[in-house]
Amino acid sequence: MLVAVLAAAAPAEPTLAAAMRYATLDGGKRLRPFLAATGAALCGARRERGLRVGAAVELVHCYSLVHDDLPAMDDDDLRRGRPTVHKRFDDATAILAGDALLTLAFEVLADPLTHAAGGVRAELVRLLARAAGAAGMVGGQALDLAAAGAPPQALDAVLRLQRCKTGALIALSAEAGAVVAEAPAMARAALKAYGEDLGAAFQIADDLLDAVGDAATVGKAVGKDAGAGKATVVGLLGIDAARAEARRLSARAVSTLDFFGPSADLLRQAARFVVERTA
Amino acid sequence: MLVAVLAAAAPAEPTLAAAMRYATLDGGKRLRPFLAATGAALCGARRERGLRVGAAVELVHCYSLVHDDLPAMDDDDLRRGRPTVHKRFDDATAILAGDALLTLAFEVLADPLTHAAGGVRAELVRLLARAAGAAGMVGGQALDLAAAGAPPQALDAVLRLQRCKTGALIALSAEAGAVVAEAPAMARAALKAYGEDLGAAFQIADDLLDAVGDAATVGKAVGKDAGAGKATVVGLLGIDAARAEARRLSARAVSTLDFFGPSADLLRQAARFVVERTA
Repeated sequence: MLVAVLAAAAPAEPTLAAAMRYATLDGGKRLRPFLAATGAALCGARRERGLRVGAAVELVHCYSLVHDDLPAMDDDDLRRGRPTVHKRFDDATAILAGDALLTLAFEVLADPLTHAAGGVRAELVRLLARAAGAAGMVGGQALDLAAAGAPPQALDAVLRLQRCKTGALIALSAEAGAVVAEAPAMARAALKAYGEDLGAAFQIADDLLDAVGDAATVGKAVGKDAGAGKATVVGLLGIDAARAEARRLSARAVSTLDFFGPSADLLRQAARFVVERTA
Repeated sequence: MLVAVLAAAAPAEPTLAAAMRYATLDGGKRLRPFLAATGAALCGARRERGLRVGAAVELVHCYSLVHDDLPAMDDDDLRRGRPTVHKRFDDATAILAGDALLTLAFEVLADPLTHAAGGVRAELVRLLARAAGAAGMVGGQALDLAAAGAPPQALDAVLRLQRCKTGALIALSAEAGAVVAEAPAMARAALKAYGEDLGAAFQIADDLLDAVGDAATVGKAVGKDAGAGKATVVGLLGIDAARAEARRLSARAVSTLDFFGPSADLLRQAARFVVERTA
């Protein structure tokens, strides 16, 4: 689906097209499209619709990585074991490829192929924009940059930052599956709550990998948080308590799915997997 | 309206909020929102709806200026007579503010306040994404960067670049006015054609200002195109022929409005103004 929507984007310039493909294909855990497509299927949506919503959220995730890796931001050279987009191409191309991927995400959602009902398409756009924008992901990255060079943050500030920076888009991915399926409000709320807990657990697991993981397995530089003096849940609680908190959130995410019965087992497995993963 | 939608965006971090306001308020000719709001009024839309569409297209225009001014792109220090966003704040904040403004544009269009019908909102999102993305504005900027350091372009390549980089969003602005008014296809096509000619005329006028204008009046650096060895319609045709071409396009834009009768006089004046302006 990502290949198809990238081709349909018809970039006007070949290097831009190559950078957009490089940033999105051949890599990544695809957590967000998995949540969107699996949530959509669970709520009875047609497969194509869930996949298109999944492609849109993955485009937003990938654009955010491209911009966050830029020298002016986190200055990372390595991502998924390969040179980052600005290392492989250049800074200008990385900025533009990110802009184009973000824009494409909204084009994909607004396309009648995603859903026949305009109200559903518009609601998906509104939710994605809210999760990705100044009150969500972009706001979280701004909080992250502001925290560098400021006194270490307390736990509630760290949790707020992470809810914005990574939690909002992960929760939206699960919720959007319900929206594209035109599921009842209860199902939508359950998937959103599941996504929120999963996102928080995922972030702690990510910080644990940074603290104790191995660069070759993780596929990016590790030990960066401690090196940057950055406050994390792991740093504030310690490794054991942080791992316990991630497992608690994961278990709560699983129990939220009681609403759906056994058909939600794939999402239950995902909630368990994110806290046990090693990469 | 821009003030209201920026406040509703509720940025999570104060510097990000300040940069978003700095990038969008107190400046600019507001050509695109003028076209959207005037086109919407001409086609009978409620005032609030045209203004919201205008705010969305202006957010996209302003984000593109913030990113284009970055050191990795056009490296401009001055914009509208003031320091550019990355000079006033920093590069990271400029990247994030641009990302947030782009995202907010889609949130504004997808909001039920913009139109009661979801299909209209989704169509506005789709058209804006198309005009702003890899096949439109971002693609045009990529073509522009690729042209630097390459052999000078011929006229048809320059025209294509400008259709993408500035023409697509200007044409969309006029067309979107018809869309939010649910105007008949003829009216929509007429406003789009008007916007295309106006956009092309506007770009030639911009290049003429760069070639013969005065920095204090124009509010940004001039003589940059010639200094950069950049091919423009003015450079390829000469000043007199370029001015004649801009006037021809402007006159054609005016005649396209015959469809609407005298109620379109404000748009006719705009088409005449863009080619005679001195700033």
